[in-house]
Amino acid sequence: MEIIEENSDVLLYLDSRRKYLVKAKKGEVLHTHKGFIKLDSLIGKPFGVKVTSSMDVEFIALKPTLKDYLQKMARKTQIIYPKDMGLILLYTNIGPGSRVVEGGTGSGALTGLLASYVKPNGKVYSYETKEEFLKTAEKNLRRIGVLDFVVLKKADLTQGIEESEVDAVVLDMPTPWLVVPHAYNALKNTGVFASFSPTIEQVIRTVEAMRKTGFLEVETFECLVRKYQVETGRTRPETLTVGHTGYLTFGRKFLV
Amino acid sequence: MEIIEENSDVLLYLDSRRKYLVKAKKGEVLHTHKGFIKLDSLIGKPFGVKVTSSMDVEFIALKPTLKDYLQKMARKTQIIYPKDMGLILLYTNIGPGSRVVEGGTGSGALTGLLASYVKPNGKVYSYETKEEFLKTAEKNLRRIGVLDFVVLKKADLTQGIEESEVDAVVLDMPTPWLVVPHAYNALKNTGVFASFSPTIEQVIRTVEAMRKTGFLEVETFECLVRKYQVETGRTRPETLTVGHTGYLTFGRKFLV
Amino acid sequence: MEIIEENSDVLLYLDSRRKYLVKAKKGEVLHTHKGFIKLDSLIGKPFGVKVTSSMDVEFIALKPTLKDYLQKMARKTQIIYPKDMGLILLYTNIGPGSRVVEGGTGSGALTGLLASYVKPNGKVYSYETKEEFLKTAEKNLRRIGVLDFVVLKKADLTQGIEESEVDAVVLDMPTPWLVVPHAYNALKNTGVFASFSPTIEQVIRTVEAMRKTGFLEVETFECLVRKYQVETGRTRPETLTVGHTGYLTFGRKFLV
Amino acid sequence: MEIIEENSDVLLYLDSRRKYLVKAKKGEVLHTHKGFIKLDSLIGKPFGVKVTSSMDVEFIALKPTLKDYLQKMARKTQIIYPKDMGLILLYTNIGPGSRVVEGGTGSGALTGLLASYVKPNGKVYSYETKEEFLKTAEKNLRRIGVLDFVVLKKADLTQGIEESEVDAVVLDMPTPWLVVPHAYNALKNTGVFASFSPTIEQVIRTVEAMRKTGFLEVETFECLVRKYQVETGRTRPETLTVGHTGYLTFGRKFLV
Repeated sequence: MEIIEENSDVLLYLDSRRKYLVKAKKGEVLHTHKGFIKLDSLIGKPFGVKVTSSMDVEFIALKPTLKDYLQKMARKTQIIYPKDMGLILLYTNIGPGSRVVEGGTGSGALTGLLASYVKPNGKVYSYETKEEFLKTAEKNLRRIGVLDFVVLKKADLTQGIEESEVDAVVLDMPTPWLVVPHAYNALKNTGVFASFSPTIEQVIRTVEAMRKTGFLEVETFECLVRKYQVETGRTRPETLTVGHTGYLTFGRKFLV
Repeated sequence: MEIIEENSDVLLYLDSRRKYLVKAKKGEVLHTHKGFIKLDSLIGKPFGVKVTSSMDVEFIALKPTLKDYLQKMARKTQIIYPKDMGLILLYTNIGPGSRVVEGGTGSGALTGLLASYVKPNGKVYSYETKEEFLKTAEKNLRRIGVLDFVVLKKADLTQGIEESEVDAVVLDMPTPWLVVPHAYNALKNTGVFASFSPTIEQVIRTVEAMRKTGFLEVETFECLVRKYQVETGRTRPETLTVGHTGYLTFGRKFLV
Repeated sequence: MEIIEENSDVLLYLDSRRKYLVKAKKGEVLHTHKGFIKLDSLIGKPFGVKVTSSMDVEFIALKPTLKDYLQKMARKTQIIYPKDMGLILLYTNIGPGSRVVEGGTGSGALTGLLASYVKPNGKVYSYETKEEFLKTAEKNLRRIGVLDFVVLKKADLTQGIEESEVDAVVLDMPTPWLVVPHAYNALKNTGVFASFSPTIEQVIRTVEAMRKTGFLEVETFECLVRKYQVETGRTRPETLTVGHTGYLTFGRKFLV
Repeated sequence: MEIIEENSDVLLYLDSRRKYLVKAKKGEVLHTHKGFIKLDSLIGKPFGVKVTSSMDVEFIALKPTLKDYLQKMARKTQIIYPKDMGLILLYTNIGPGSRVVEGGTGSGALTGLLASYVKPNGKVYSYETKEEFLKTAEKNLRRIGVLDFVVLKKADLTQGIEESEVDAVVLDMPTPWLVVPHAYNALKNTGVFASFSPTIEQVIRTVEAMRKTGFLEVETFECLVRKYQVETGRTRPETLTVGHTGYLTFGRKFLV
């Protein structure tokens, strides 16, 4: 049984759209349109327990997962979706011990995901030019508990990469094609390059730069996820769906 | 520079459809329709290097990734695709240290993926009723180098789960709904249940069992990936694509 | 040059989301948040002309197409989308002279489409149990100018079909499987049955009823349409899309 | 009851993949791997009847639909799919009486579809530069019975359009953007332009030409159709699907 301790993060779950990420802090209160919940009342209870608001509405006190944290970040800035993150992990071969160059940092969502998987002895070098994003990302990464596995760098990836012999370079930035030659130099001899881009023109320029530079197995995908309403006699995909986030492009360095 | 050593695994890459997973073994030869390559000639060269076959055709000697191994397994039995594996990883919150119950083992592809991510201190308990699958899986998991993180069990998940307080239960089997109550008991208080099923009837029965048993945030997705042909003036999705592999269903335990 | 006459229908087009279907009627005025337009000012001008509102904003006076009328109906009740209507037309082989049984009438959108294509010598027999829908449909069909090709019937298709030797039966109703035997009897010897259903359970029951009754080439499809934002340097699918409207099932009668 | 007459076209249906389009001609025989069928034995029987081959295998004698003819043409050259044809019909507002410019003719499949819907008093002016395609198309259009509604023209649409005041221009050719100004001149004041293109670069050039020339409501779509295997307990989309045929672009002329 995992118990909620003082200052534990807790996800108070009302329904699939209304989830509140809070801290079990003494003296703090969560106010919702379904009544308030005193957060110190959570301390000492097991995760998964039902708690009741002042309006007698039930919430469940879940232990937040990485995905919960990432989705909370998504409220503020556009982040890469879990579906795309999953493909990035699988195609880049990032795992425990990997050294990864990544950028732009943005709110740190993709950084946080990668850092969670390079643990306990890998490192993510995350580049960002905007000071305010770096501050937000630092806060977010500390909250997820992976700040030790990240080096936040105020620098522009299109100007060069300081690291070398890295396992992967992962980009979510407007001009990935300008980073391609730097990525080639920074990567290990068969390292992986990955790029996420919303527009097809970005993809075309990036793929052409990759082919010129010395990448093979250059592949571009788009990943569509549909959610279903499942209930005997009423099963069907949801009406509205996210039809596009971005294209994913991958390639592996070889020695030219 | 990573160097190919004696007995290193090497992926000899001709093009995106013709990739050969070999061992740099003394005295062995790879025969292809583009000529043969003496495999001991690879030893001592860096990964990523070009090698030339007896018919003077160039191959690239890549270092195999987890995905390469998984895709080789896929040739023999139907495995879950990388796109689905990525979503499973993200939604189950499986990472370094996780303890996971999984089944059916099959060829061990999903087992291998999960084991790679629970390293270095987690464990995958993989259930399978067919002896021959267990043998194949053992061989595959040894090759990937993750056998130490897996407990292969000849047992039927629909009859019960021996482990307790596990972080996740991940199923790819014909009757997942029969495992739902056992999964509930085996999981930690807010652990995650995941199931992959090809048919919608399996989904409906599983979702209804989950709702009855005590899971919330029960969600079903399907994930479609399209590959693009990218080339200035000729950019378009590929004509034929995989339109369906299976539906993914997730849910989190709560205390009823 | 087609000229706007008195009482012509006109589609005043501001942008892709703001289109006003009006009549060029003396004394009438269209009020919009971009100013008002006196509708009799349109009379005598050619279709396609620019007109300017009182706030000096330009609108284009288009001649409405069938799709424009159908989309206006869609605002009030859920109608089958053009993408699905297109497939229905192609698969049912409905054309000039066809005799078609259709139901439920609803707002008459699908009725209107079919009637437009059976002209000038075919007929659509449209069944509906709710009086108020029949009234709305009659108004809509008169507006499109196809009321002469439709017989509106207050009757329940699950209770039987009065027509015989029809070319096609087209359904958009909650229990299509109950109509299957009646459809078989009403159809010509190789006539086509078509059904639109939002849920997969409806599809399964309908398909099984069709197989039992004497239909072959029984096929179920879903049709997804994505809209693109096209602009050099910014080309991409739109973010949100309609992920599901319904499943389409078709089959052809044979003599059992 | 529709009876098979001498020289009627008949679709002999074995299963969804094996369908034979034949003529009920005296003295002719259909040879299949499931035995032979004497075609004059069909004469006098009703459509929809079962016939038995020399190997005692049952076939059904269906009356061919327009879609059956179109799909037979598709075997030889790449044609636009029914899903795309359906959208073209709906978006172009083509119906009885429409005058349409179309090209390239190719095998005449799209020509045949459009001609079937402009009957009985419309006309399709179909442009093609290659003599051999015109010959094939003529044969195909005669077979479908719509040759009277088509004017086949050996001419290049990028060089100009001879017709004027047409209702629609529909293109399936490599450089549609070169036809855009000619289409504008040939169309009625609010006529519709439609173009089918496999690559995104064709789309971008065409859309930009349309915006410059005087079209509004310029919209690009892609239409994906998935087929389902429906059977209680085994319902699922088919594994392989057509992931791409082409992009559809539409626009309406206005007076600039």
